[in-house]
Amino acid sequence: MNNMDRLFEAVGKRGHVCVGLDTAAEYLPPRGGGDTKAVLDFNRAIIDATADVAACYKVQIAYYEEAGLSGLLAYSKTLAYIREKGGLAIADIKRGDIADTAARYAAGHFSGDFEADFVTLSPYMGMDSIEPWLKLAGEKGKGAFVLMRTSNAGMRDFEYLEVQGTGGTRRLYHAVGDKLSELASLHLGMHGYGAFGAVVGCTEREEAAGIRLDYPNLFFLIPGYGAQGGAADDAALLLRGGNGGVVNASRSILKAWVAEAEASGVDKSEVTLDFAAGAARRAVVAMRDAILAAVGEGK
Amino acid sequence: MNNMDRLFEAVGKRGHVCVGLDTAAEYLPPRGGGDTKAVLDFNRAIIDATADVAACYKVQIAYYEEAGLSGLLAYSKTLAYIREKGGLAIADIKRGDIADTAARYAAGHFSGDFEADFVTLSPYMGMDSIEPWLKLAGEKGKGAFVLMRTSNAGMRDFEYLEVQGTGGTRRLYHAVGDKLSELASLHLGMHGYGAFGAVVGCTEREEAAGIRLDYPNLFFLIPGYGAQGGAADDAALLLRGGNGGVVNASRSILKAWVAEAEASGVDKSEVTLDFAAGAARRAVVAMRDAILAAVGEGK
Repeated sequence: MNNMDRLFEAVGKRGHVCVGLDTAAEYLPPRGGGDTKAVLDFNRAIIDATADVAACYKVQIAYYEEAGLSGLLAYSKTLAYIREKGGLAIADIKRGDIADTAARYAAGHFSGDFEADFVTLSPYMGMDSIEPWLKLAGEKGKGAFVLMRTSNAGMRDFEYLEVQGTGGTRRLYHAVGDKLSELASLHLGMHGYGAFGAVVGCTEREEAAGIRLDYPNLFFLIPGYGAQGGAADDAALLLRGGNGGVVNASRSILKAWVAEAEASGVDKSEVTLDFAAGAARRAVVAMRDAILAAVGEGK
Repeated sequence: MNNMDRLFEAVGKRGHVCVGLDTAAEYLPPRGGGDTKAVLDFNRAIIDATADVAACYKVQIAYYEEAGLSGLLAYSKTLAYIREKGGLAIADIKRGDIADTAARYAAGHFSGDFEADFVTLSPYMGMDSIEPWLKLAGEKGKGAFVLMRTSNAGMRDFEYLEVQGTGGTRRLYHAVGDKLSELASLHLGMHGYGAFGAVVGCTEREEAAGIRLDYPNLFFLIPGYGAQGGAADDAALLLRGGNGGVVNASRSILKAWVAEAEASGVDKSEVTLDFAAGAARRAVVAMRDAILAAVGEGK
């Protein structure tokens, strides 16, 4: 059993939605206040309202680093709250550094103030920036998602470059996927996935089925849903037999209260935390059901 | 005038050494204590002892993130101390994320608790993970170094892959360098360098002169000196007319006290902060002079 098994089972129970807590103070309803304490209260309300319908939470550390030490206190408490509630927390930190430095990052994010269940990592420097995380991950039952093919326009700059290889046209992201898949084969969990998976966006539909086939032992963290153009049936192509990945959405959940207030004629200045949390829950349920339906149709 | 001009001029006055404050508690002399407060005191002593002989300081955030919030308080105070003393601080954070997330990271590291003069960035996700830093960098007079060809063994995994291009055999790191050079051409300083330079290790001697020629407008942050096998004449090949880069060393400076204590028969348990700071200064001066000599010979 590795940590990806826990996530696999969470998907089986609660669906594929990963709630992105990329919480900017300006996303909060006006009555929620605007400081880092208010961000934490908002996160807690979202977590309480979605714990039984979301697979996991992804906390984007940039939104907290922006505010310095007080922001990182809110980050720390957000992770702790997710874990207290029995949820799974992905620290979206995209760290990438080598050897001893990587081991220190691992200690910082797999234990102590910033302890999370999973982290995201960047592969540019090579596998000696990934492998040092494995030791502590094994000891503490943690996992990771390594950037492979992301969902932003700029991914065409480097991830999409064609590299020399033996298998015809291969892109840089395939080279990354190949190395990750090799690594995953060394520590497969009971559901067939390595403890370290990959970030694969659901924005390039024509490649999705091929990527899923090429990397059967990589569990995917899937960004790009909603605002970046990915739909439920795009995401479903990256799943395997209905599981094998979690699909992240952030703003469409955190700011669901804006659309609901507009649709129901509620004065936005009167929106409470409870209202925002209820709207977030409804957004998660709708997304969960759309993906489950797409997965069912794809079977 | 951009921020790379400030660094260029610092090199002209004080030589090429970038002191890496990758300060692990176990690097401290025993009488220095072992907590994050002790790390900060040690950093201050090193900064005081080297301010007139080092071009700049690079603070590796992983060594502080490891200790959580108290570690990041020491990180914040270390950056502040460098800047109070008139020094230039490079935050070695290797962040890499897109769009709004990148802008939040930029706010976090170009202002507030973690304000530095330069940051290091990772290019994997593409130029939309680099460009959002430019706006605040321009407003606040900041700069960056983007990973291009690093000094670790694992750089062969991806940075070294041959990519399809028009100019014969080109590697991924050339593709990154080309994009960075294009970007640099848009905001050249008075000494001919863009505000955003590149990280290029001094470990692959045979490529160094070519890289320097190919990317004349990129100022280099050069790791790999000493422990990783690079020597003064390797580093000199990456400089241009004697300037154009700073050369980082960390452990050989921070732990210079160990070798000095052994050589002089001093009981290591009796080593003071003053002794360690003096040894660090001598290590910086020796490295500075070796690089200046190599640059002189190469002219």
